[in-house]
Amino acid sequence: MDTKPSQVDSTAVRLAIRGQLDSALGELAALCAIPSVSARSEALEPCAELVAAQMREHGLQAEVMPTAGGPPIVFGSLAGRQPDAPTILLYNHYDVQPPEPLDLWESPPFELTIRSGVAFGRGVGDDKGHITSRLLTLDALRAVTGELPFNVKFLVEGEEEIGSPHLGDWILAHPGLLAADACIWEEGMVTPEGAPLLYCGMRGIACFELRCHTISHDAHSGFGGSILPNAAWRLAWALASLKSQDERIAIFGHYDTAVLPTIRDLQLLSALPNDAAEVRNRYVLPDSGFLGGRQTDGLEYHRRAVFEPSLTINGLDAGWQGPGSKTVLPADARAKIDFRLVPDQDPATVGRLLREHLDRLGFEDVESVYLNGQRPARVDPDHPWVRLAAETGEQVYQQQAAIAPMLGSSGPMWWFAHHLGLPIATPGIEYPGLRAHSPNENVRLDDFELGTLHCAHLLSRVGELPR
Amino acid sequence: MDTKPSQVDSTAVRLAIRGQLDSALGELAALCAIPSVSARSEALEPCAELVAAQMREHGLQAEVMPTAGGPPIVFGSLAGRQPDAPTILLYNHYDVQPPEPLDLWESPPFELTIRSGVAFGRGVGDDKGHITSRLLTLDALRAVTGELPFNVKFLVEGEEEIGSPHLGDWILAHPGLLAADACIWEEGMVTPEGAPLLYCGMRGIACFELRCHTISHDAHSGFGGSILPNAAWRLAWALASLKSQDERIAIFGHYDTAVLPTIRDLQLLSALPNDAAEVRNRYVLPDSGFLGGRQTDGLEYHRRAVFEPSLTINGLDAGWQGPGSKTVLPADARAKIDFRLVPDQDPATVGRLLREHLDRLGFEDVESVYLNGQRPARVDPDHPWVRLAAETGEQVYQQQAAIAPMLGSSGPMWWFAHHLGLPIATPGIEYPGLRAHSPNENVRLDDFELGTLHCAHLLSRVGELPR
Repeated sequence: MDTKPSQVDSTAVRLAIRGQLDSALGELAALCAIPSVSARSEALEPCAELVAAQMREHGLQAEVMPTAGGPPIVFGSLAGRQPDAPTILLYNHYDVQPPEPLDLWESPPFELTIRSGVAFGRGVGDDKGHITSRLLTLDALRAVTGELPFNVKFLVEGEEEIGSPHLGDWILAHPGLLAADACIWEEGMVTPEGAPLLYCGMRGIACFELRCHTISHDAHSGFGGSILPNAAWRLAWALASLKSQDERIAIFGHYDTAVLPTIRDLQLLSALPNDAAEVRNRYVLPDSGFLGGRQTDGLEYHRRAVFEPSLTINGLDAGWQGPGSKTVLPADARAKIDFRLVPDQDPATVGRLLREHLDRLGFEDVESVYLNGQRPARVDPDHPWVRLAAETGEQVYQQQAAIAPMLGSSGPMWWFAHHLGLPIATPGIEYPGLRAHSPNENVRLDDFELGTLHCAHLLSRVGELPR
Repeated sequence: MDTKPSQVDSTAVRLAIRGQLDSALGELAALCAIPSVSARSEALEPCAELVAAQMREHGLQAEVMPTAGGPPIVFGSLAGRQPDAPTILLYNHYDVQPPEPLDLWESPPFELTIRSGVAFGRGVGDDKGHITSRLLTLDALRAVTGELPFNVKFLVEGEEEIGSPHLGDWILAHPGLLAADACIWEEGMVTPEGAPLLYCGMRGIACFELRCHTISHDAHSGFGGSILPNAAWRLAWALASLKSQDERIAIFGHYDTAVLPTIRDLQLLSALPNDAAEVRNRYVLPDSGFLGGRQTDGLEYHRRAVFEPSLTINGLDAGWQGPGSKTVLPADARAKIDFRLVPDQDPATVGRLLREHLDRLGFEDVESVYLNGQRPARVDPDHPWVRLAAETGEQVYQQQAAIAPMLGSSGPMWWFAHHLGLPIATPGIEYPGLRAHSPNENVRLDDFELGTLHCAHLLSRVGELPR
């Protein structure tokens, strides 16, 4: 474990964080009280305005900037003591997932509630809690060091939970504004063992709706069952053609641009904690319960989880879904699907190949509607910025950092890692019990404090970055 | 065309029907005002009571009799002038299909509304209108002939629209009560050309729900897409294994008990009007638009429609069905399916073979829940009772009767044709534009009058039945 001392007095920073914790939780409660559900375009402008106001209270300059068709982006900035000091870009988002199903929440989703040292509420981790934590980080550093030895830029968007559809265009429309030396990502977490987890990539995603329409209106199965084309059957056959039961995606060309993990990636995966048994427990799977019962402990489990392109049916919708039977022959059927992409797959090519596959197999009647997507992203896990994040994490958590070469989930990381070309570090306040996107989303206050401290230590060493 | 005169004064009967038409429509309005939706167990007892009350007003004895777990059965009877005269059993039902979608109704579904000689409302044809028509038939006959030359039994159940789950047990529990010489079926119709249509069989049906449950709760596709089993995928693969894209049911043994149509059946099918083009128009299909574009005009169209076992997906339900995308990996997925059965298939065997198929292909995780079913039924199309129905229909409609050896749809006909061993005739008041089970269900008043007259003429010749 690296024990190089931080350039900042760790105890002083920790005391500064602790001293402002109540006030920070008050800010977080205000953020959580706004139901900024991007999936329903709810309360996004008010939430953006509140984020900007909170930034200003912390001494940042903040502007609520329009996007071309989406909710605004909050851009904040704070100059350090030297104009030519390195600049850190912090990416966050103020939108949240819908709170449903409401009846499973033990306290109101939009009311920050603290029970036994755990904060509950939609967005306490993903991602409002991180906005609060980042602002607290800057305050604590300034309380100890005075003016910061780096410049700060904040980009807080309002559409992360629906695939950031307007972020890319906004970035393209503001060249130079986001110039920086390194990036701190929106969220970070500890492993089940409490070690800091740094991730150096995110899978891409491509979401589609498959729609089939066969006849002008629903028919009666007694009349039409043997003569009229059934949209639900067409959809079932089309879906079954996309992926075989061994989970291999059957779309011609789909794997052509998928890059295999490197030896270094596999080394990093091997060093990650083996949580396969925990995951099996969490989802109540038998011992052989991962896809098709194949052996997926350890390295192969980790490899599959993040370096294997996936195709998920998110939803099916056709005909009668109520109690009992209804002998309807549906005219319409729909499926929602998402592909998770590994480097160097991209959503546009995936969509084109999907269409070609459907046409080739005679499913011209199955429409494929592109909903949204993200390109996959990689960050060099040996970049000095990632190494700094690991070192400072090890100081704070007193455990060796876990470095994941890739996450299974997706986000707009490509824009920061590839378009802006920034190294990315992921300190944060979450833990595996977060329940992001689910009822009872929660963050442990201890993790909130440690994640904030980790971020402060990392930022205090920005000067070590090669420029 | 047979022109043997009816044994009753046709003009007098017609005048008697016409004279009581307004009063009959008033009774029908009262029946339609009760939303007796069996799928929701709504208002069934009150509707049964009203049917019994109306029977009594028409001079019948009527009893509301309990079933073992379902809504009551109304049993009515009327003795003719001679106790040893033939007995006719009339089968009808007082329940209706749900009215949804409500916004497509042009007048309230449970409010009988007459526009331009057409009566609209849920149940005006299927089957409350037939109850009213049958009672009007008996009145008109008595107005002309005095006491009836036959005995009448009425069985009116409340679960036809959900597969008559308690009818069979009730029949078994009342041996002798339904002893009769012939049966008049619940509903009948004219062809698009206005000829009386008699049908001599109904396909059976077996309805199932397929349920798949893979993990304890929904997962996030970014986390689980490559490692966790997805219920929607399992269901899609299981469904696709049940029927190939050429519409051949792939379940081992499914066709083993399916009897081919006889030469006589094919003769009768050949004589039916060729409505393939009309059906294509109604469902906005291209010229090659029947299943897979195969040539299905004329005889082959009719043969497929009624003598081909079918398997229909009635509904699909899994995961996210709302707007946009949601990257959920569903723990649960469900499909509703129905098999239409031809003689001598039966629901129990179909269910056993379905289970065996799923197990054989490794879909032990897909549960198959039997919802309800009916056995297929045949009536000899050359039975004197059917011939009488054709002759009297030709007198009334002045067109040659169409005799369908089988209907594509299903009903509890097996109990009457096979268990009770009765010949069955199907005079009735419907036309192809009925919209049964759909918004704006409607009956033309002219058809109501002619169907009632046809039934009266048929009954007036009961004496010609061999005993």
